[in-house]
Amino acid sequence: MFHHSVDNVIFGCRDGKLEVCLIQHADGPAKGQWGLPGDFIQDNESLEDAAVRTLRTRTGIDDIFLQQFKTFGALDRYPNERVITTAYFALIRPQDYEAVAGAHELDAAWFPTTSLPELMYDHGDILNEGLECLKRKVRYEPVGFRLLSKKFTLLELQRLYEAILNKALNKPNFRRKMLHMKLLIDCNEKQTGGAHRAAKLYRFDADVYQQLKQQGFVFEL
Amino acid sequence: MFHHSVDNVIFGCRDGKLEVCLIQHADGPAKGQWGLPGDFIQDNESLEDAAVRTLRTRTGIDDIFLQQFKTFGALDRYPNERVITTAYFALIRPQDYEAVAGAHELDAAWFPTTSLPELMYDHGDILNEGLECLKRKVRYEPVGFRLLSKKFTLLELQRLYEAILNKALNKPNFRRKMLHMKLLIDCNEKQTGGAHRAAKLYRFDADVYQQLKQQGFVFEL
Repeated sequence: MFHHSVDNVIFGCRDGKLEVCLIQHADGPAKGQWGLPGDFIQDNESLEDAAVRTLRTRTGIDDIFLQQFKTFGALDRYPNERVITTAYFALIRPQDYEAVAGAHELDAAWFPTTSLPELMYDHGDILNEGLECLKRKVRYEPVGFRLLSKKFTLLELQRLYEAILNKALNKPNFRRKMLHMKLLIDCNEKQTGGAHRAAKLYRFDADVYQQLKQQGFVFEL
Repeated sequence: MFHHSVDNVIFGCRDGKLEVCLIQHADGPAKGQWGLPGDFIQDNESLEDAAVRTLRTRTGIDDIFLQQFKTFGALDRYPNERVITTAYFALIRPQDYEAVAGAHELDAAWFPTTSLPELMYDHGDILNEGLECLKRKVRYEPVGFRLLSKKFTLLELQRLYEAILNKALNKPNFRRKMLHMKLLIDCNEKQTGGAHRAAKLYRFDADVYQQLKQQGFVFEL
């Protein structure tokens, strides 16, 4: 018999940077260390329930769509005993979900994926698998729209895709392809308050996406 | 602490029908029942090692690519105690892998997914999730080519996609789209021995697939 835990990889996007929500443990074997918000599964809860409870109690983040992506069971992934962990993942807007440390955390905070603290155990591997999963998803689902504000500029969308794919995209190509898919609705508004020339705002067309999804589609990036 | 098991959903295709490999237990709480080839994880093996070992000892099927797809942990999924199971999935040619019952099985056999015996525990749900996973995959990866012979006719390919997607596809459309993708190489041979007019044989172009994969692509079915 084994211990079984859940770990959550919660991605967000802010100022064109991909971020992930981490906690710093206040007690236990990982005291003082940073890691993904996770915990052992209790007898009376399903994997999903455990993931939801863990995220809520450790970070204050609640009421979001968590998706299971992989279970990690290497023999040496945890010190001194065998713990198998099932990882969940979510895409949210950090602006909407402040990370608040729970009773067993020194801290809970968002970090850019490009400047992370050292992570405990195999949490770096779990995070990387979550990133790979996000990279695959971004080609076939409009995941970006869960990370941006309701209204966004094409440049914001491009910066997000660049942050996820970790590569620069050609601006005219990106715009042409995105607009060609008809997934974006022109809000007939312009962004205000920016330092640059005001850019057009768009929103996401969920109906068109549902249609495209039926026939199978891909973001050609 | 919980028991943890692995279960394998092994898909094949024969005569245009999608098949799955099942075992009938000879002992234990599921004696006489049919289920997915699975077993408890041992202390000294990783999840992947357990999946490989289980499949080999229960069905004789070895040396195939197993991919983890989901972990099932509902409270009541197993009788009398809590067992969490991680499911793996593979696509092979049943012709190449005869199912041979191990020491703890009454039988091991391939079944068409359309005419299955009653399955133990939640194995029906696990199989259905495996099927959904296969349906999603088939749009973005040339998974079909792992299930067919090296050389195949367009009709065989179409029948396979129809079996996976569980719907009829328009023949001229299917042919046009498949050939348009340039993923198929004309073998300049015709199928022999069939009852019908000899059809052209094709094989799969792995190089073109690798190129398409880089830019993201979809089988428009």
